[in-house]
Amino acid sequence: MQAKQHLNSEATEQCEKVAVTVALGDGIGPEITRATLDILAAAGARIAPEYIDIGEKLYLSGHSSGIAPDAWESLRRNKVFLKGPVTTPAGDGYKSLNVTIRKTLGLYANVRPCVSYAPFVATLHPKLDIVIVRENEEDLYAGIEHRQSDEVFQCLKLISRPGCEKIVRYAFDYARSHGRKKVTCMVKDNIMKMTDGLFYKVFQEIAVEYPDIATERYIIDIGAARLATQPQRFDVIVTPNLYGDILSDIAAEMTGSVGLAPSANIGEQIAMFEAIHGSAPDIAGQGVANPSGLLLAAVMMLVHIGQAEVAARVHNAWLATLEEGIHTADLQGEQSQQVVSTAGFAEAVIARLGRLPQRFTPVQYQSQPRQPAVKNLYKRATPAHKVLLGVDIFLHERNFTPEQLASRLLALTKGILHLQMITNRGVKVWPEGFPETFCTDHWRCRFMPAQSTQFTQLPQEVKQQDIVQLLQTLTQAGLDVMKTENLYSFNGERGFALGQGQ
Amino acid sequence: MQAKQHLNSEATEQCEKVAVTVALGDGIGPEITRATLDILAAAGARIAPEYIDIGEKLYLSGHSSGIAPDAWESLRRNKVFLKGPVTTPAGDGYKSLNVTIRKTLGLYANVRPCVSYAPFVATLHPKLDIVIVRENEEDLYAGIEHRQSDEVFQCLKLISRPGCEKIVRYAFDYARSHGRKKVTCMVKDNIMKMTDGLFYKVFQEIAVEYPDIATERYIIDIGAARLATQPQRFDVIVTPNLYGDILSDIAAEMTGSVGLAPSANIGEQIAMFEAIHGSAPDIAGQGVANPSGLLLAAVMMLVHIGQAEVAARVHNAWLATLEEGIHTADLQGEQSQQVVSTAGFAEAVIARLGRLPQRFTPVQYQSQPRQPAVKNLYKRATPAHKVLLGVDIFLHERNFTPEQLASRLLALTKGILHLQMITNRGVKVWPEGFPETFCTDHWRCRFMPAQSTQFTQLPQEVKQQDIVQLLQTLTQAGLDVMKTENLYSFNGERGFALGQGQ
Repeated sequence: MQAKQHLNSEATEQCEKVAVTVALGDGIGPEITRATLDILAAAGARIAPEYIDIGEKLYLSGHSSGIAPDAWESLRRNKVFLKGPVTTPAGDGYKSLNVTIRKTLGLYANVRPCVSYAPFVATLHPKLDIVIVRENEEDLYAGIEHRQSDEVFQCLKLISRPGCEKIVRYAFDYARSHGRKKVTCMVKDNIMKMTDGLFYKVFQEIAVEYPDIATERYIIDIGAARLATQPQRFDVIVTPNLYGDILSDIAAEMTGSVGLAPSANIGEQIAMFEAIHGSAPDIAGQGVANPSGLLLAAVMMLVHIGQAEVAARVHNAWLATLEEGIHTADLQGEQSQQVVSTAGFAEAVIARLGRLPQRFTPVQYQSQPRQPAVKNLYKRATPAHKVLLGVDIFLHERNFTPEQLASRLLALTKGILHLQMITNRGVKVWPEGFPETFCTDHWRCRFMPAQSTQFTQLPQEVKQQDIVQLLQTLTQAGLDVMKTENLYSFNGERGFALGQGQ
Repeated sequence: MQAKQHLNSEATEQCEKVAVTVALGDGIGPEITRATLDILAAAGARIAPEYIDIGEKLYLSGHSSGIAPDAWESLRRNKVFLKGPVTTPAGDGYKSLNVTIRKTLGLYANVRPCVSYAPFVATLHPKLDIVIVRENEEDLYAGIEHRQSDEVFQCLKLISRPGCEKIVRYAFDYARSHGRKKVTCMVKDNIMKMTDGLFYKVFQEIAVEYPDIATERYIIDIGAARLATQPQRFDVIVTPNLYGDILSDIAAEMTGSVGLAPSANIGEQIAMFEAIHGSAPDIAGQGVANPSGLLLAAVMMLVHIGQAEVAARVHNAWLATLEEGIHTADLQGEQSQQVVSTAGFAEAVIARLGRLPQRFTPVQYQSQPRQPAVKNLYKRATPAHKVLLGVDIFLHERNFTPEQLASRLLALTKGILHLQMITNRGVKVWPEGFPETFCTDHWRCRFMPAQSTQFTQLPQEVKQQDIVQLLQTLTQAGLDVMKTENLYSFNGERGFALGQGQ
């Protein structure tokens, strides 16, 4: 009877195990991943690893993204991914596996805790303890680039409301569940009033739902400067993709130990956990690599799947190991008592499971139910009342002055759409341009109904057909149109920026 | 006879004086500008100041850019501008004077030397001595933003060949004429292969003309991280506008003394010199402000107008003053021997004219002819052979799956242009999308002739008329087109990026 009960309880425990897709990766990947899994097993992590192959082997066998269909199936099924570092072979035609996984699986949040471990790791900033929450899917990283003229190349920066809402909400949820006190938003909304302006507007909207978390905003230039000089001022930072890319590298480097830093890529359905360092093929197979980055990523994973207690046990044992001077070769220094192998380090952490660090502050993770498979879903808003007000038509022309171009356009256009302004790289050059303004061969010509120039209360609505007609006229006259951008209002609010100097 | 000769020589000297437009500015502007001009006069600078009013007074008298027509005339006439800090009044409708001046006068280079003055200014980075050369006109700062759907906002990043050539050439010229050894290029060309790729390509092209200058390239994220941790690795850094904005604030802040930093804004015809600090209205009129930022800007101006010897005399006297502990209140510290007023500081510098610093390395500026009024003019290249290959049409649609949208487009389009791909925020969602990809209401639909899909050697040329016809068809069918981007090849090279996952 007792035996049966024991069996039942074991069975229950078995049922509770969370299936986790694991990739050993390339280079030092297999050794650090095995060390990590050994520690997790000894700590009582209730996980069931399912192994997939990714990386070099797959690239070289003809999968240009470094991953095969059955591996995708495993990720879809398990929705949690512990990933060793991979090697992307040199040469064109091999795509970044991380970018592919992030974008196709919608991993919208890149979460990177950066912590200094002085005096065990030398740093000028011993009090650095920051989490960067970086938007991971949009911004300039949408990869939409066009060459539009002999001289001008363009990349689209896209910022979406769902993208902003998801990342900002994630940052506040993270702050709350991890006992963080403040979320700082960094944007450049003094220049990019619409795109970065949206990000900050959403930040303000969502902040009111978290009255227990302090908030602040920095313009990215001075914010990055403060981060580089006074990192102790910051707690959680939430920011668009490009700024986050820069800030998270700055913060990680400032800790003095990029090798210890973990990161998480979180999606609505799937999450991926990894070290931020690479596969270090030069020291692969020697058993000397430091497994700490991946181990701390596994700690993030345990919190994510609702095993906060195990996460804290592992993290505290790791801190105790570090402060007792049991170090892998990369951390060898004055504070080292014993330099150990990868496996030796794992054994040392296992031997300390259940202990709290004495010099570092022990870590606590808030016990919370396992994250739902689908969380933080974006709720699409009611559509705004959108009114078409005109069009920006971009021309590739090298032989005109602004005045000549304007004359030609004015002579050609007879319909509702009138030429209101010409800019070159954003600066108004007609009407009333400055002769000193340098002009490329890339002209933006704004067409709106005559009375809409000043964007009065009742601008005149335009029809798509008017724009098609205008394009017809211009192209038939031999003008080299290479792109258009429609001008709208949304619920009466202007949906386009004025020209510089307008 | 002797008297007459003396008169003649004086007259010659008089003739050599360079007319310089000077604005005292707002707040502490007048006191620091007067202190600066006193030092220049005592040092024998051959300049003739012509004063203009800009800033607060002008803003409030109805000039929305803070500058009046006669001031523009002075700038155009003299082409050299020493500018005190200005106050932009709070409230909408007042435009940044600096942005207006930069963009309308084509000041394409923002040059910011950042130097640590340890132990007189506390810093974690005593060996920092860097010049950031930031592109100043284009990139995301063209201010071209559009809201395109309920959910998506867009900002255009424009990078032009003339913009890149001018800034890169300026950086190498600056390095050579200032005895600098290395120019580092920072870009994100692993992601933005076309725009940032152009910047780096131009950097490589121009670098070969300067075999005496070492070069290196960093991806901006790791570059910024290295700057923040090991600034002594860098010498001159050249970079596009946004990155330069961030890097120059980081470097200035790391010196510990934003108040000492000068900057120059250089155009083909006109150049502007100023401190990077603001007008500090809280301490205005008290005679306690530190004039060093503007004074060092004036030193840059003297080098620019070919008065290198005077520039070095002023700079070395300033260094001697600093190291003797004669400090304004902002620098008061352990190393201060005497705390002086703004005027007292100017007197101390004047008293040391002709002396070299003992602890700091004396400054030398290479004697060179006065910069020509128009220099570094961009030579427009021969046009490439441009072939129109298709079009990206962007739709605002909220009620379709990618498959449904593709079906509808396939059913509608009968001409030469066939639907090849649909992406959402850059990620391919048709054909063969992933169900996990999050889709906004903003769809990019790529149309090319059927046989051009793989961009074979001989893609089929499209006519503008084909695109107009396609737009006609789509809009008549009620599809909500909100922008287009034409697809070209230039001299046979693809002028557009593939979709992510394509």
